[in-house]
Amino acid sequence: MNKLDSAIRDAGAAAYVAYGSSVDADVRYLTRFRTGDPIVYVKRPDERGILIIPQMEHERAVRESIAAVVTRADAGFLEYVKAGESRWRAAAHMIADLAAGPVLVPATFPLALARELESFHSVILDGAGTVGAMRAIKAPDEIEQIRSVQRATEEAMERGIALIRGSSPKGGILLRNGQPLTAEAVRTEIHVHLLTRGCRGADTIVSCGPDTALPHNLGTGPLLEGEPIVIDIFPQDELSGYYADMTRTVAKGEPSPEIRDMYEAVRDAKALGASRVRAGVTGADLYHAVVEFFSDHGYESSTQGFIHSLGHGVGLEVHEEPSLGPRGGALAAGNVITIEPGLYYPGIGGVRLEDMGAVAETGFDRFTQYEEELII
Amino acid sequence: MNKLDSAIRDAGAAAYVAYGSSVDADVRYLTRFRTGDPIVYVKRPDERGILIIPQMEHERAVRESIAAVVTRADAGFLEYVKAGESRWRAAAHMIADLAAGPVLVPATFPLALARELESFHSVILDGAGTVGAMRAIKAPDEIEQIRSVQRATEEAMERGIALIRGSSPKGGILLRNGQPLTAEAVRTEIHVHLLTRGCRGADTIVSCGPDTALPHNLGTGPLLEGEPIVIDIFPQDELSGYYADMTRTVAKGEPSPEIRDMYEAVRDAKALGASRVRAGVTGADLYHAVVEFFSDHGYESSTQGFIHSLGHGVGLEVHEEPSLGPRGGALAAGNVITIEPGLYYPGIGGVRLEDMGAVAETGFDRFTQYEEELII
Repeated sequence: MNKLDSAIRDAGAAAYVAYGSSVDADVRYLTRFRTGDPIVYVKRPDERGILIIPQMEHERAVRESIAAVVTRADAGFLEYVKAGESRWRAAAHMIADLAAGPVLVPATFPLALARELESFHSVILDGAGTVGAMRAIKAPDEIEQIRSVQRATEEAMERGIALIRGSSPKGGILLRNGQPLTAEAVRTEIHVHLLTRGCRGADTIVSCGPDTALPHNLGTGPLLEGEPIVIDIFPQDELSGYYADMTRTVAKGEPSPEIRDMYEAVRDAKALGASRVRAGVTGADLYHAVVEFFSDHGYESSTQGFIHSLGHGVGLEVHEEPSLGPRGGALAAGNVITIEPGLYYPGIGGVRLEDMGAVAETGFDRFTQYEEELII
Repeated sequence: MNKLDSAIRDAGAAAYVAYGSSVDADVRYLTRFRTGDPIVYVKRPDERGILIIPQMEHERAVRESIAAVVTRADAGFLEYVKAGESRWRAAAHMIADLAAGPVLVPATFPLALARELESFHSVILDGAGTVGAMRAIKAPDEIEQIRSVQRATEEAMERGIALIRGSSPKGGILLRNGQPLTAEAVRTEIHVHLLTRGCRGADTIVSCGPDTALPHNLGTGPLLEGEPIVIDIFPQDELSGYYADMTRTVAKGEPSPEIRDMYEAVRDAKALGASRVRAGVTGADLYHAVVEFFSDHGYESSTQGFIHSLGHGVGLEVHEEPSLGPRGGALAAGNVITIEPGLYYPGIGGVRLEDMGAVAETGFDRFTQYEEELII
């Protein structure tokens, strides 16, 4: 928490304040407390951060959170509400008591709470995104958590691909036990396996044929013979909150020459990107290296071709700092990032391959071990 | 959207602006677009709301969203970023262009974006929570979506309870195929069934014995003979985004007289609460009726006993308006609410029962059909 203390002092603030449920990755990182309802976190320099929660969460919070725990009643919130203050006003009043001076807050701090707080103390925006920057550098235990999710993800990928591999094409459609094998069935197979590993898959992409030309198309209906099938899995471990992220593209039966060429280009682009990863290189450098590589092979990077960034950080959010896009800054040792080039052409289809790993001083510590084969 | 237009006009604003991913239920409600990354929504009176998204989401957004769709490039965002503006500044610049006047924003609007916007136009807080209030009154199609999630939830409850019912107690522990039946196994059974119905369970509570004295304890390890087992399931439909919410308490083998008495009191409290539901009654009235009922039966409502509110709205969030707590306002026809009294005593255990249904002019249209039996 030294970086947060420095940021508080540099801003001339008395405390850092966060507000949100544990869907907010900053809140989860600072408290290590899981809750669907918003809580308040107040951190003063050289002191343990304080988590303010309802009475009914007290015992669980004491057991699970790394923060000190105070109930809303003990922090004065309920008293202020009983005195007729609105919930935002009462929360601000309580925070002002705890902070006892100007507060530093994140960019996404709720405007309603900020405006009420401003009547007690000045509210200073943390423009540097201090907590996001702290989260971007993973500690060894965080890397182990992410590796563990990645292992479950590769098992789930294998379960999904095994269904496709074991299917029988008939009339252009993949059949399983005589019935069409659907995107939904593969997605369910993947999600069920993730569940047994304590992970939650959501919006897993299993898209096929024309649908693959849209990178975020979830995919639906029967899977087709000789067409690219993009499988993109990014589950969250329920207990730790960490994500993994991986993509493979496969085909049952021979796909078109265009798809085969795209697959080779994407695979080589991924290898090129990964080979250049090391601390100090910028995300923009890596992105532009891949854009140039694609350009040399006849693929553009505009509204078709390579239409997204090369990758992103992964942690308590599936998309977090650093960015491997056109404006991505310098990578640092301990970043966990994806490398995921893709090519997308309406009328032809799409191909994406995605690995994840840690940035080291000298290279890319790839977590992803899963094979790369287009035709299965 | 007439209520939103009225709120914009009443505030003297030119447009309403929201910012967030579809985890933000207001954003999801206004756009009906699913995205893990934050998007901007701008609504001017008498016009269709505009969803501003990255190029790669364009085709999907046009297909899925009820809003008009404009890419960030077409809205000027990328140009402002290229000109060196920060992402918050560029987003504010783009919003200012689209709104062309003062903007009305929700309480949780990000402070960083509000401060940048203020240099273009005044930023007015929607203190009334207009979109939350709109969401609290469900349209018939929304009620059908929630009923559908509730049906899947009851099936999943039956799967979980069937495991417990079919277990064999030995030495105080419930066994299944000779192995201890654990909270984790019941939770996985429930989640897997939900998945096959297109729903996502998270943090499902399967707690037993002493753990039940904490209402939000997830539960872990072997389930015990003659002890209360609290099962609280609140899944979200992946496609529609709507939740359901239900709780049952069961025991395999005879629980203590205290638990049996608590069960009767909770069941009767739930029936009492449900019998008083109708449009116009306040959540506070219902809450206090149950507090009084419990008090008459020797149960307090403080740091033990009945320690949470009587219920809450359910929709695109699992906890939303209206509240059935000590400060809950008047219910309206079309609200979908839970009725969930519970009693919690450290050293004895906890009991909770929860039904969900719609508020009608004349009563409570209960969706939950699942039986109530403590001993199974």
